[in-house]
Amino acid sequence: MELLKQRIQEVGVVVSDKVLKLDAILNHQVDPVLTMEMGREFARLFRETKPDKVLTVESSGIPIAFTTALHLEIPMIFARRKKTLTMDQDTFSERVPSFTKGIVTDIMVSSHLLHKGERVLLIDDFIANGDAARGLIRIIEKAEAELVGVGIAVEKSFQSGGSSIRERGIRVESLARIASLENGQITFD
Amino acid sequence: MELLKQRIQEVGVVVSDKVLKLDAILNHQVDPVLTMEMGREFARLFRETKPDKVLTVESSGIPIAFTTALHLEIPMIFARRKKTLTMDQDTFSERVPSFTKGIVTDIMVSSHLLHKGERVLLIDDFIANGDAARGLIRIIEKAEAELVGVGIAVEKSFQSGGSSIRERGIRVESLARIASLENGQITFD
Repeated sequence: MELLKQRIQEVGVVVSDKVLKLDAILNHQVDPVLTMEMGREFARLFRETKPDKVLTVESSGIPIAFTTALHLEIPMIFARRKKTLTMDQDTFSERVPSFTKGIVTDIMVSSHLLHKGERVLLIDDFIANGDAARGLIRIIEKAEAELVGVGIAVEKSFQSGGSSIRERGIRVESLARIASLENGQITFD
Repeated sequence: MELLKQRIQEVGVVVSDKVLKLDAILNHQVDPVLTMEMGREFARLFRETKPDKVLTVESSGIPIAFTTALHLEIPMIFARRKKTLTMDQDTFSERVPSFTKGIVTDIMVSSHLLHKGERVLLIDDFIANGDAARGLIRIIEKAEAELVGVGIAVEKSFQSGGSSIRERGIRVESLARIASLENGQITFD
């Protein structure tokens, strides 16, 4: 998606060879027009898979998951992150490490919101090692729902997350694929 | 806003005299059409105040803050919650208790995103005791930005948050005001 790549070049801050800061458009401040365009593109890519619901995890994935759901005219669910070990009995939950935060959290979806046989489109802002996405996929499996695909705004293709999910036969679409952040330069695939 | 009140009556779960669960439409699963209407209404109410940015705090406020910003054609910022005591030097941060979670968190906005003199519209999903809203207001003050008003989807008017902010001369608009949750009944003002 050219518009997204252009904005990434304009506002992206290369923090290290592995970390790109996009807090001006994606995960702290949000550009509504760009976000609507990303949702429109995900909807175009995945409409044929006939999803019933869009699933993401709080917080940064929420705006793009929302606009995707808006364009597909279906509900959006954001998995909650829990800091406690006490889980409600009526939730599907998974423990996942966070690449950027360096901590482990439990992510959960209330079982009354995700049903057996429902077709679920997974949307997130970033994929690095893929831990969050794999956690959400395990939640979909626990619910006996069906994953129709994964849409990622920014894939760091020099990390293994995207490819590890594709290797399982799951369709993954990224709007921008970053091949390298070396020498402070953002290079797209 | 009649549509919101109607949906609250349909899906709201009264957990106790003080806690109303709206996870089917607001803070876990999100209804895109309803959320667009809420954003449209906030934009209508506050357009005349000429806001430059919409501010909320992760996570539940994000969808309605997003649609408000979309209708006003301005950026949206969501304050991040931090669990650590180590703060970046370049953030405005405030410590706030959470009514529903029973914990204290630090909320922060990067100083490069909020500037002196900017007109800020505060949007959130719920107001109970008003701690989150007051924290965001202190962040706006630290940035020397200007608060133009506060838009709340669901105000529990039997708790003091909304009135404590109005008493300071700040305009607060709520789309649904809940007078009581007693005896498992949702009663609007």
